[in-house]
Amino acid sequence: MAVRLKDIARDLGVSVVTVSKVLRGNSDIGEETRKRVLKRMKELNYQPNMLARGLASGKTYTVGLVVPDLVHPFFAEFAKSLGGVLRASNRALILASSEEDPEIERQEIRTLLRRGIDVLLIASCQPSLRNFYELGDERTPYLLFDRNFPHLAAHFVGSDDVLVGEMATRHLIERGHKRIAHIAGQSTSPAHDRLRGYKNMLAEHRLPAPENYVVPCDHLEEAGVATGHKAMQKLLKLDQRPDAVFCYNDPTAIGAIEATLEAGLRVPEDIAFIGCGNMRYNDYLRVPLSSIDHGTAELGRIAGELALELAGKPEQPPRSILVPPTLVERASTGARKAR
Amino acid sequence: MAVRLKDIARDLGVSVVTVSKVLRGNSDIGEETRKRVLKRMKELNYQPNMLARGLASGKTYTVGLVVPDLVHPFFAEFAKSLGGVLRASNRALILASSEEDPEIERQEIRTLLRRGIDVLLIASCQPSLRNFYELGDERTPYLLFDRNFPHLAAHFVGSDDVLVGEMATRHLIERGHKRIAHIAGQSTSPAHDRLRGYKNMLAEHRLPAPENYVVPCDHLEEAGVATGHKAMQKLLKLDQRPDAVFCYNDPTAIGAIEATLEAGLRVPEDIAFIGCGNMRYNDYLRVPLSSIDHGTAELGRIAGELALELAGKPEQPPRSILVPPTLVERASTGARKAR
Repeated sequence: MAVRLKDIARDLGVSVVTVSKVLRGNSDIGEETRKRVLKRMKELNYQPNMLARGLASGKTYTVGLVVPDLVHPFFAEFAKSLGGVLRASNRALILASSEEDPEIERQEIRTLLRRGIDVLLIASCQPSLRNFYELGDERTPYLLFDRNFPHLAAHFVGSDDVLVGEMATRHLIERGHKRIAHIAGQSTSPAHDRLRGYKNMLAEHRLPAPENYVVPCDHLEEAGVATGHKAMQKLLKLDQRPDAVFCYNDPTAIGAIEATLEAGLRVPEDIAFIGCGNMRYNDYLRVPLSSIDHGTAELGRIAGELALELAGKPEQPPRSILVPPTLVERASTGARKAR
Repeated sequence: MAVRLKDIARDLGVSVVTVSKVLRGNSDIGEETRKRVLKRMKELNYQPNMLARGLASGKTYTVGLVVPDLVHPFFAEFAKSLGGVLRASNRALILASSEEDPEIERQEIRTLLRRGIDVLLIASCQPSLRNFYELGDERTPYLLFDRNFPHLAAHFVGSDDVLVGEMATRHLIERGHKRIAHIAGQSTSPAHDRLRGYKNMLAEHRLPAPENYVVPCDHLEEAGVATGHKAMQKLLKLDQRPDAVFCYNDPTAIGAIEATLEAGLRVPEDIAFIGCGNMRYNDYLRVPLSSIDHGTAELGRIAGELALELAGKPEQPPRSILVPPTLVERASTGARKAR
């Protein structure tokens, strides 16, 4: 006979409500009780009927995630970390990629909402708010991550990107660089905020910030290397060549460094570079790459926990959670190898 | 009023069956008709009711994917390519990661089946067939990818891994190397087949294959760099040091090259390396890494198409589709930079 919640509750001397809460990943159950209940469920090979639960509760026990590019390590790592949190609460992750195309993103969001999900998480590639006003009409709560819309009252989990820009630029200044350029993103909130951080720091240190030292680029996620390479070629042609470059992300920095080496210059002696994202293989690059780590796994974990809360209680005042970034120094800004 | 399939069919002068087939991603509709129908659906902002369709047809229009590690670029790229095929047919992708843990994998498979999916795709980290005998009891068709079980009659999409091993080893032999080692996987079919390909080639060229030239390792996906580093330290201690190493995958090769450089040796002059997987950033590594490309995006595309077929017609004799690998030469085996 099928094992029921009642059986588990009786065996452990707890209430059915408690067992049910553990199953639903409710956070107001103590860690020890949670472990005991999960252990007993496993021993008895308890199989909740998800479909029946879904029909009864109106919940689907799924969370939808829309990212611009899954192969970019930031989004892969975010999805992995998020998936771990959801798994611990018996939620499944439905994944969609927008390929940085606003139209595909709109389609994917529509498909997910139509299918039924409890919460939607998006790193949007929309230039405007249109999608999200539509979303506001739906009953499904949503949560922006990585990319925010400043004029939209929405839940957000991301980096403090002004601080990212300040931290990267300050590091280059502290290394003695005076002519600091920025290969920038555009149309997204991280792009805007990192640029602001860069400008803040230059102003604070009274360093020149000529307009042509900022090269705004598109497609920095899925085509970062090629885009960074091209942007750097522009900077190399300037009369007053920069002596350091803060790059929007790590792939962009990889491309920019390639262009610099191809031009017969040395990194970091002639031009230093810092990226953003702290990708898994940064230590092993031709020039090991300094980077700002925005705590991707931590972002995924926090987003997962907020998503679970929203799944349980959709109506909540919008919260914005910013994870503080950290600096990782490597050879591209002159750090000697630590290992 | 809501737009119905009937309206679209009438507007275009086609049958309702045709429109319905396009919606379900059925492949027996001509490309031109498909485009016309999709265009009209878009113009009318047609919203199929997925839940109602699911209840009526017993289909969920979702495909489940279980991978060992999403951050490993192979699985991220596979998922991206697969997702593209599914999106074109209005299917969603539910993603789960096993973290290379057989117990988590079993849980995730159970959760997906309970939730209801039309097809399950798995790159399994199971050492045995137990999971899949259980799966055989379910009505949900499944498809193995990347990792096969030789004695299981199941659908499979993957590389020809014997050929991968032969191709990598032949390349090292053609470059003049005589003492060729292999940092190997274990317990999975690609590990077994790549090792077989390596041994085939050494035998064919009457080269020595001492037992201690093969270092079998676990955790080559999510901890490849550290594992490769450690395995290489063993090889460097041998009296007869190898002059070339075929590494199970690219992260493993990155770690092995690090260990070699740390020992004061040169790559490829003292020891040459070839990996497998042809990761996105291989060109930009300290030593640009030669690799066998197993056509990841193509694997994802083929798996997606087979999954759609199985979703439409679950009962089919098992098919095994192997994508031929290609060799990409870079500096780690002495290729000069092409760019």
